[in-house]
Amino acid sequence: MVGEEWPMTLDEGLSCPLPLPHETHIVMGHGSGGKMTHDLVRRLFLPRLDNPWLRLGDDAAALTLEGGVRLAMSTDAHVVWPLFFPGGDIGRLAVCGTVNDVSMVGAIPLYLTASFVLEEGLEVSVLEKVVASMRVAAEEAGVQIVAGDTKVVQKGRGDGLYIMTTGVGIIPPGRNTIGGAQAQAGDVVLLSGALGEHGIAVLAARGELGFETRLQSDVAPLNHMVQALLEASDQVHVLRDPTRGGLATTLKEIAEQSQVCIRIDESAIPQNAAVSAACELLGFDPLYVANEGKVVAIVGRQDAERLLAVMRADRYGASAAIIGEVLPAPAGRVLMTTRIGTTRVVDRLAGEMLPRIC
Amino acid sequence: MVGEEWPMTLDEGLSCPLPLPHETHIVMGHGSGGKMTHDLVRRLFLPRLDNPWLRLGDDAAALTLEGGVRLAMSTDAHVVWPLFFPGGDIGRLAVCGTVNDVSMVGAIPLYLTASFVLEEGLEVSVLEKVVASMRVAAEEAGVQIVAGDTKVVQKGRGDGLYIMTTGVGIIPPGRNTIGGAQAQAGDVVLLSGALGEHGIAVLAARGELGFETRLQSDVAPLNHMVQALLEASDQVHVLRDPTRGGLATTLKEIAEQSQVCIRIDESAIPQNAAVSAACELLGFDPLYVANEGKVVAIVGRQDAERLLAVMRADRYGASAAIIGEVLPAPAGRVLMTTRIGTTRVVDRLAGEMLPRIC
Repeated sequence: MVGEEWPMTLDEGLSCPLPLPHETHIVMGHGSGGKMTHDLVRRLFLPRLDNPWLRLGDDAAALTLEGGVRLAMSTDAHVVWPLFFPGGDIGRLAVCGTVNDVSMVGAIPLYLTASFVLEEGLEVSVLEKVVASMRVAAEEAGVQIVAGDTKVVQKGRGDGLYIMTTGVGIIPPGRNTIGGAQAQAGDVVLLSGALGEHGIAVLAARGELGFETRLQSDVAPLNHMVQALLEASDQVHVLRDPTRGGLATTLKEIAEQSQVCIRIDESAIPQNAAVSAACELLGFDPLYVANEGKVVAIVGRQDAERLLAVMRADRYGASAAIIGEVLPAPAGRVLMTTRIGTTRVVDRLAGEMLPRIC
Repeated sequence: MVGEEWPMTLDEGLSCPLPLPHETHIVMGHGSGGKMTHDLVRRLFLPRLDNPWLRLGDDAAALTLEGGVRLAMSTDAHVVWPLFFPGGDIGRLAVCGTVNDVSMVGAIPLYLTASFVLEEGLEVSVLEKVVASMRVAAEEAGVQIVAGDTKVVQKGRGDGLYIMTTGVGIIPPGRNTIGGAQAQAGDVVLLSGALGEHGIAVLAARGELGFETRLQSDVAPLNHMVQALLEASDQVHVLRDPTRGGLATTLKEIAEQSQVCIRIDESAIPQNAAVSAACELLGFDPLYVANEGKVVAIVGRQDAERLLAVMRADRYGASAAIIGEVLPAPAGRVLMTTRIGTTRVVDRLAGEMLPRIC
């Protein structure tokens, strides 16, 4: 459990006489989206690039320009393998991932850029398919890809293609601040659908499931659903899409940012039977498996039912549910009431579960 | 001369009975920044992602937001090898490259995002050095890095690290449109300094020069120089930083975008003696070697001397010179009067000269 030991060593003042491998070298777990990614960001990037936006730790930076225009900006690198998987591909993922991140601070995404790192020998027809898929996703989201860049690396220095997307959007005037630090005791936690479809679909594409499934990735642009939620109520406090690291990691981050306790009910979490079956066989917990078309909304209790109805009216939110609530204490903790009535402490993803899932 | 044949095949309606390798697969030349990159963009990306900003083909997209705010946005992937070279490193390059692209449409760059693709096994100390260098470059340019992402790929699927940066900036109210299509007959061409320092410095770091040199890359943020130019005159029509593909490719693109002829004097182009020596030995033409801290400005003749003085007053423009002029015809052509008085037609970089130079 190397992934567990690292933060202990440093957070609790203990030290190992010899450096651990992941203290001196990058390991796959640094890309997990869980504890090791969190620590890399907190201890390497943050101190060197320190500014208020990075410190906030939200999915997108909310920037106020001259004239009071509020711009949201977010970026993601996409290294998913394989490039095509049931329900999507790296192109759709790259567009939706960034559209969703920009949406999660309450912005209307407008413009994207895309940078490509191509590996020598990649079939041009593969690139054509991926770019066509980006177009379809961009049209669905209503965004334009306005700038791009292409670099080529030698065979064996890449893996087909990597796509980096950055998006900007506008936060409409008068909209409340939405972010991970805005959860309040008494709030209600909504989830827009079942967990783990993206992660398990990618595993299926890798042939790692050991059985056939018709499961598809949930990769989708959530901006229209988010706008509908924000138009329906001014009591939306937090929005976050639980991608790498899954719902567990996302909720843990919010609990820490807002210094509240988030309590969820295991039995209330929407399930996909194929994901549940796969997770049982593989020993995965769906709470930690990546999603690419789900949103967690933490909202004022008085509007929760109304917002649930709005989610369910969206094509990507039909099985949305209220899955928990926000309590004042213990601050920074996520607790889950299990199906058998016990309470489980939910932490960030430790180590590395599914490399290159997005 | 495969790089020459491809456009002929397609542009002139000829066709080869069998597809050429670079028609079906990505080759290193697709990342050259020259003819093959141009064709890939024009024939693969543009038709699928078509919109007015991509069609313009400038270094950054100029977007008008609600309220009339004009936002510039640009992105670049950086895959330079090696990661450290005389005068800079991939981190400084990633920040300066994007700061400069945003500046080239007349914007004041403000905010950057950075996505990292790390290869398993990368030394953490290398990443620390690169991020520290990004901070220094960002401080010099006066920009903040407000969002980021980190992905990790398996050993042998990357090459240490790749960095993708995206930048946004504001075009101040009242500023004229600046772009590759704005050159006018009668304009004068300014260049801020000697050519090829970046490309040759990276070759030196690769040990490919075969001799010792103290040459340093020119990688630098040009935004302060650009702002000084734009404050000094409203007759700046085109700004472009001649990176991959060098000055030749940059001028050819401008000539085509503006449908003018650009005539330059070989003897007027500032030279770096070490670059000239290296190019002579290696058989390179400095016109095609990459720069990372130079700007070409095409300006109204009446303000040319004043703008030259402004360039020379900047720390990165001490050896700036007037190198040519804009003529009405032949449209789309770049002509160079050589030192021996002959006229040479200057075209885009064909094929691939220096892979992974930025």
